[in-house]
Amino acid sequence: MRFIADVQNHSILAVGSLAFDTIDTPAGKADKVLGGSANYFSVAASFYAPVNVIGVVGEDFPQDHLAWLSTRRIDVSGVQVAKGKTFHWVGTYDNRMNEAKTLSTALNVFEHFDPRLAPEHKKSPYLFLANIDPVLQQSVLDQAASNHLVACDSMNFWITGKPDELKKTLRRVDILSINEGEAQLLSGSKNMVEASHKIRALGPSVVIIKRGEYGAMLCTPKGLFIAPAFPTPTVIDPTGAGDTFAGGFMGFLAEAGAHRDMAHQNPDQWETLLRRAMLAGCTMASFTVEDFSLERLKRLNSHELVERGNQLMQMITV
Amino acid sequence: MRFIADVQNHSILAVGSLAFDTIDTPAGKADKVLGGSANYFSVAASFYAPVNVIGVVGEDFPQDHLAWLSTRRIDVSGVQVAKGKTFHWVGTYDNRMNEAKTLSTALNVFEHFDPRLAPEHKKSPYLFLANIDPVLQQSVLDQAASNHLVACDSMNFWITGKPDELKKTLRRVDILSINEGEAQLLSGSKNMVEASHKIRALGPSVVIIKRGEYGAMLCTPKGLFIAPAFPTPTVIDPTGAGDTFAGGFMGFLAEAGAHRDMAHQNPDQWETLLRRAMLAGCTMASFTVEDFSLERLKRLNSHELVERGNQLMQMITV
Repeated sequence: MRFIADVQNHSILAVGSLAFDTIDTPAGKADKVLGGSANYFSVAASFYAPVNVIGVVGEDFPQDHLAWLSTRRIDVSGVQVAKGKTFHWVGTYDNRMNEAKTLSTALNVFEHFDPRLAPEHKKSPYLFLANIDPVLQQSVLDQAASNHLVACDSMNFWITGKPDELKKTLRRVDILSINEGEAQLLSGSKNMVEASHKIRALGPSVVIIKRGEYGAMLCTPKGLFIAPAFPTPTVIDPTGAGDTFAGGFMGFLAEAGAHRDMAHQNPDQWETLLRRAMLAGCTMASFTVEDFSLERLKRLNSHELVERGNQLMQMITV
Repeated sequence: MRFIADVQNHSILAVGSLAFDTIDTPAGKADKVLGGSANYFSVAASFYAPVNVIGVVGEDFPQDHLAWLSTRRIDVSGVQVAKGKTFHWVGTYDNRMNEAKTLSTALNVFEHFDPRLAPEHKKSPYLFLANIDPVLQQSVLDQAASNHLVACDSMNFWITGKPDELKKTLRRVDILSINEGEAQLLSGSKNMVEASHKIRALGPSVVIIKRGEYGAMLCTPKGLFIAPAFPTPTVIDPTGAGDTFAGGFMGFLAEAGAHRDMAHQNPDQWETLLRRAMLAGCTMASFTVEDFSLERLKRLNSHELVERGNQLMQMITV
């Protein structure tokens, strides 16, 4: 199953935000805790593969956290420390905890984020473009080698605000992960089967439609695969679930040595890896929601991860 | 797999409503079309096993429909025709089509429904108590033989209106199917894992939590099984989806010769049958939503049913 032997060659490059979050959920509140898409993604992916992070933080961002990331085979040399304050998101969740409502967003240093790839970053065969301005996503793609396996995320803000730029990005990515509301907005279809066909026609051969507490749906040339979320009894804060899903998903593909040519050379193997990666992503996300910020992921060990992955597999086995 | 040889012995007794529905969905409107829980359940179950229906209709109910049911190994001799009008439900669905909003309910002859089992009905080894007054559900249980495999449904109206009577019913049933909102109301838990434990403690050893367009979750002594809904691109009217899910589920168990002792005698086989029955239920429900009333089920043939069942299985296979 493994095509790639050395560690360097299965590293993942992740570009996105490192942030402070202030969150109010039915289970409690957290004030100015660590968050951000690239932060969540990297910690999750690092259970499977080495990660290089590209992002920007302000002078108020705790150096301790960057140091901690470094202890987990996450290379933070691409995280710029800029004059000013770190990106700060304030959000709340209703009783169902399925969708975040943004109360305020202070972009701060993130407003002038200009991702720059060092030569060693360009070698990562896996690239994750978290939910940032599609113009920046393209800038990263311009800098990166062309044989990356590229996954990307987006959101309503860019779908409505920069639809043409987003479509340019989509033509250049292999995998798009997006939630149901975003899929509807992007495709104009309420029906997720229809939406997935329309979005695949925009470029990504693989579309993952995230369904919150219900899991995620994988749409490929081979058809659909539906992965349930692991039904954890402890749901504290859904923030970061989508990014840790992506981290588990890409991490799994990287560890397994998946590559973009596989889709043509061995489509059955590619499909199997994608399906297993879906379950890895769902398993990872189910830990994230069990506490605020990265707390649960910090306590997570690989034994628990494997055990829950097996449990989830049992829950879909007839 | 089959324990029971003759046709009589795998028939299902279904007690519930036959009704007129007036429905408004984002996909269209239907005025005074055929509906009712026992009606939907019976048509669905009849793809797998013979069904006896107990219900009541008014003088305005089309005899043609009862005659049509009879052509499908559905025995309608237990359907009373009473002086007056048939039960009439008026409802609407919002854009997500996940939850019905009742605009009006005219119980009419259903208000004085008093289910009476003829001797031949008492022999059915499978009993489905659709969503009716729990006092009537108990009356049916009193009349029936004690070795039935009993499944039942309920709703918010009875959970809040007759909680003690409903709990008496629950102590006497093997399987409860209920949707997420109802499970929360009945258990006091927002979390469906917690809710399922609490509801199982009330009596039913098997609890099925219906998740609308996301499928259903099976909760048994062995753990959880999560079945996705078949993602059909054509969603016209979700009315009857839950009852046809139950019909496919019970029909499958009846055809397979499942019986309540199996839970103790052969728990692995019992679990496997329950899981397959979940997929049969989800498959059946996905046809129901493709048209108003029973129209899609009327056009459904067993080839399509098997094909879609196989497709659904593919969508959960890693």
